[in-house]
Amino acid sequence: MTNTQVTLVQIDNYGPWTVTPEPRREADLQTMQSRLYADISQFVGNRGGYTFFTRFDNMIAVTNGCSFDDHALLQESVGNRYPVTLSLGVATGTNPVQALSDATELIQDAGSAQDKNRRECLEGRVIEPPHRADGDVQIAHFDVINATGNYTDELNAFDTFIEIEQGYAELMRHMRYAHDSLSFFVGGDNVIVVCPELGSAEYEEALCHVEDAVDVEMQVGVGRGTSAHEAGYAAKHALETCRTDGTRVELEWETT
Amino acid sequence: MTNTQVTLVQIDNYGPWTVTPEPRREADLQTMQSRLYADISQFVGNRGGYTFFTRFDNMIAVTNGCSFDDHALLQESVGNRYPVTLSLGVATGTNPVQALSDATELIQDAGSAQDKNRRECLEGRVIEPPHRADGDVQIAHFDVINATGNYTDELNAFDTFIEIEQGYAELMRHMRYAHDSLSFFVGGDNVIVVCPELGSAEYEEALCHVEDAVDVEMQVGVGRGTSAHEAGYAAKHALETCRTDGTRVELEWETT
Amino acid sequence: MTNTQVTLVQIDNYGPWTVTPEPRREADLQTMQSRLYADISQFVGNRGGYTFFTRFDNMIAVTNGCSFDDHALLQESVGNRYPVTLSLGVATGTNPVQALSDATELIQDAGSAQDKNRRECLEGRVIEPPHRADGDVQIAHFDVINATGNYTDELNAFDTFIEIEQGYAELMRHMRYAHDSLSFFVGGDNVIVVCPELGSAEYEEALCHVEDAVDVEMQVGVGRGTSAHEAGYAAKHALETCRTDGTRVELEWETT
Amino acid sequence: MTNTQVTLVQIDNYGPWTVTPEPRREADLQTMQSRLYADISQFVGNRGGYTFFTRFDNMIAVTNGCSFDDHALLQESVGNRYPVTLSLGVATGTNPVQALSDATELIQDAGSAQDKNRRECLEGRVIEPPHRADGDVQIAHFDVINATGNYTDELNAFDTFIEIEQGYAELMRHMRYAHDSLSFFVGGDNVIVVCPELGSAEYEEALCHVEDAVDVEMQVGVGRGTSAHEAGYAAKHALETCRTDGTRVELEWETT
Repeated sequence: MTNTQVTLVQIDNYGPWTVTPEPRREADLQTMQSRLYADISQFVGNRGGYTFFTRFDNMIAVTNGCSFDDHALLQESVGNRYPVTLSLGVATGTNPVQALSDATELIQDAGSAQDKNRRECLEGRVIEPPHRADGDVQIAHFDVINATGNYTDELNAFDTFIEIEQGYAELMRHMRYAHDSLSFFVGGDNVIVVCPELGSAEYEEALCHVEDAVDVEMQVGVGRGTSAHEAGYAAKHALETCRTDGTRVELEWETT
Repeated sequence: MTNTQVTLVQIDNYGPWTVTPEPRREADLQTMQSRLYADISQFVGNRGGYTFFTRFDNMIAVTNGCSFDDHALLQESVGNRYPVTLSLGVATGTNPVQALSDATELIQDAGSAQDKNRRECLEGRVIEPPHRADGDVQIAHFDVINATGNYTDELNAFDTFIEIEQGYAELMRHMRYAHDSLSFFVGGDNVIVVCPELGSAEYEEALCHVEDAVDVEMQVGVGRGTSAHEAGYAAKHALETCRTDGTRVELEWETT
Repeated sequence: MTNTQVTLVQIDNYGPWTVTPEPRREADLQTMQSRLYADISQFVGNRGGYTFFTRFDNMIAVTNGCSFDDHALLQESVGNRYPVTLSLGVATGTNPVQALSDATELIQDAGSAQDKNRRECLEGRVIEPPHRADGDVQIAHFDVINATGNYTDELNAFDTFIEIEQGYAELMRHMRYAHDSLSFFVGGDNVIVVCPELGSAEYEEALCHVEDAVDVEMQVGVGRGTSAHEAGYAAKHALETCRTDGTRVELEWETT
Repeated sequence: MTNTQVTLVQIDNYGPWTVTPEPRREADLQTMQSRLYADISQFVGNRGGYTFFTRFDNMIAVTNGCSFDDHALLQESVGNRYPVTLSLGVATGTNPVQALSDATELIQDAGSAQDKNRRECLEGRVIEPPHRADGDVQIAHFDVINATGNYTDELNAFDTFIEIEQGYAELMRHMRYAHDSLSFFVGGDNVIVVCPELGSAEYEEALCHVEDAVDVEMQVGVGRGTSAHEAGYAAKHALETCRTDGTRVELEWETT
């Protein structure tokens, strides 16, 4: 059984800030957002977690391995270095969607995303080290089969992007409603999915569903571990097996 | 008539690099990608352009105001500071999709995105200063009506993201095929669209289309200028008018 | 008794790289160096350590609290994100200068700083958690008395810098040879000194020495802790006491 | 005759900010400072200028090629992305020290570095394009002869640093008072000096002075150009000639 620790990272009162006193230069907002994301990704990542940029003003992280103090330190450090502050909600559970719902509620209960009096709230609880276990996190790493040959080197860059994006939009919705999983586009033709305990059948079903719905062919490697990094790293290796052997679903723990 | 200068930024041989000799840590890839994007956004942005992260390994920029030498300098500077290199294709035209297609072809003709011998190619041509004009760029800035009240403060963070994402996926496809425009999600609930010369009717049609297709209500401010920054800044002001007045389409050049 | 864990961070073969195949743009080198430093400072800092930029190609860090695995991860992460790689030597001891000498030798024994075949060496040993103790690190935080009033607001910016710099050059040499301490300029008019177990008398002597030699008046707060952050944070508080009370030496552990 | 455009970059009210409401984590301050410097270096550098970190809260830049609007944009962009703001003073002249003095006075006249009501002042004037000329900037690039063999690979890293630092402290003072030049340590064993029109004799005298005073042997390449980058790049090439030919002073414009 998985036990995913999910953190919702929300920039406090960000929308109003971007237009006060006048709209700020878009390029500066883009630069600031993506660097803030990069810093969080690095902080969480070198503790074994994964952070996804999602909407940038609301980022979602898998933080198994990050203590409550780590969360507080991240919050303090961002507050010292950026013109904006963060609120963090953290929750855990066997179902990643439910964990994220719980994390979201903790932040919503503390105030609106556009409440100028809600700043740097830090709510929730983490999995303490004695309760962490080998299969706490299950990660599936999808990519599009031969995306370079079929799309990047053939279509214009936007039409390629549309194909990848439609594949992602379909996969994210399906994995969420059919399999309680959180799917994130991570660049190129890659989608990383945070899953409960699923098996081959569910992944095969998902690949078929996406192919039927939007005609994008994907493959997937799946891994498990104590942390997102461990699970994700195993998933990457499994995906390499797909690429080498031409298989479409590889579960790293079933590979010989 | 618009005359958009579009640059395709492609990381050379990126896919293979990410798994050589072994898959690299995902958090490092995410950090590196988003910082590279931030740097390009800043370089292009402080010359009046806009850069969109798109797939991160393939970024699209509106570069009116960036000379050919600027492109070469960006390429050199990234090569000096990152473990990867960039190829750049630049093209211009009244139709942003066509300009991007031309820019893409220039890079495709130089070699595959996964050709390890194609490095730092720089192809194409820019609009020389004497030929630049006031209405060269038209930018539409969309957002979702009351996203915070309807979604962020109500649903869990992923379900909110799904709503925004479905709105974006529908809008990007529609604007591309119906109106020759390039749409980019830029965080929060914002989508920036690079357009040819369009009027109110086309934007209203697009809003209705998205609402009908995926039940997401958006509004849009539109601006024109010599550069993406000028056009986009006007669009932001027009969007502020939507927010204040409750209108759904505001063309900055028709505001009194 | 202190037990300082010191890490020498050396960029591999950096000098030759900066001029291969041609000298690289200075602004790019400066940008890359200072961002690399910032990243290391953040990585070490959010584990309780301090990193000093020193010569940028050779940085010195106080890493009590960073495990050997942390060092390996830092090395891997930098290798994934920068065009250069790092070698690390780590050593410990009651005398910070001796610890640094040991750390340096480990790297020198592995090869020259300009040996193109020496890459990513990682040598030495850390203090394991059971052996860490409260007073392992002693930090003194010096600044120049009324630097803003006497210098910054009065002299031109370079002449102010000369004054600060002469104070620093004298202090660094004196603290190293008279008191086995490592002094680092950290910006503004601040110098942070990594010390063995010293008392008020030594700090007063040092202040007098600097004032006699180069006519720069300084004050100092001193702290102790398990980590550089703890010791340094206590030192900052002690320095605030100097500023408030007009005293010149404050030892945090003697403050009531 | 040189005509150097010098910009003083001062963080507004920085000292008080670093201790409000409590002292901030040192590692965060170091990270923030060095990234801010990196960003300014990149902005100025990709317009042909050089920025020196100096004291970090007061940075000095050679900005020939940056317009007044560029300065305003830098200020706005930093204000959008950092928790601190910048004041800028810019002045020009044949004597870099005098130009810096003028730039400093403009900022001092606007208010103290620790005046909380002085924010984002932007004062002074730039050299307009029609008045820019080939030899506006003269840059000398010094380094320590065989620093790696004599120091880095032989002494402990701090003792090497002391040697480099004493050489720099002596050179900076001498070049400022004897030759109206601004000297900046830029990492490794490199010092970049912004000069008025000087010839071989002055550089040879300076090398002898430093060797006599602190027993550090240096060599120097000198270049001229319209911008700091052009002059500095020529100086780097001249320094390569020193390294190859074993000469101690090379003026790029006298090299055949």
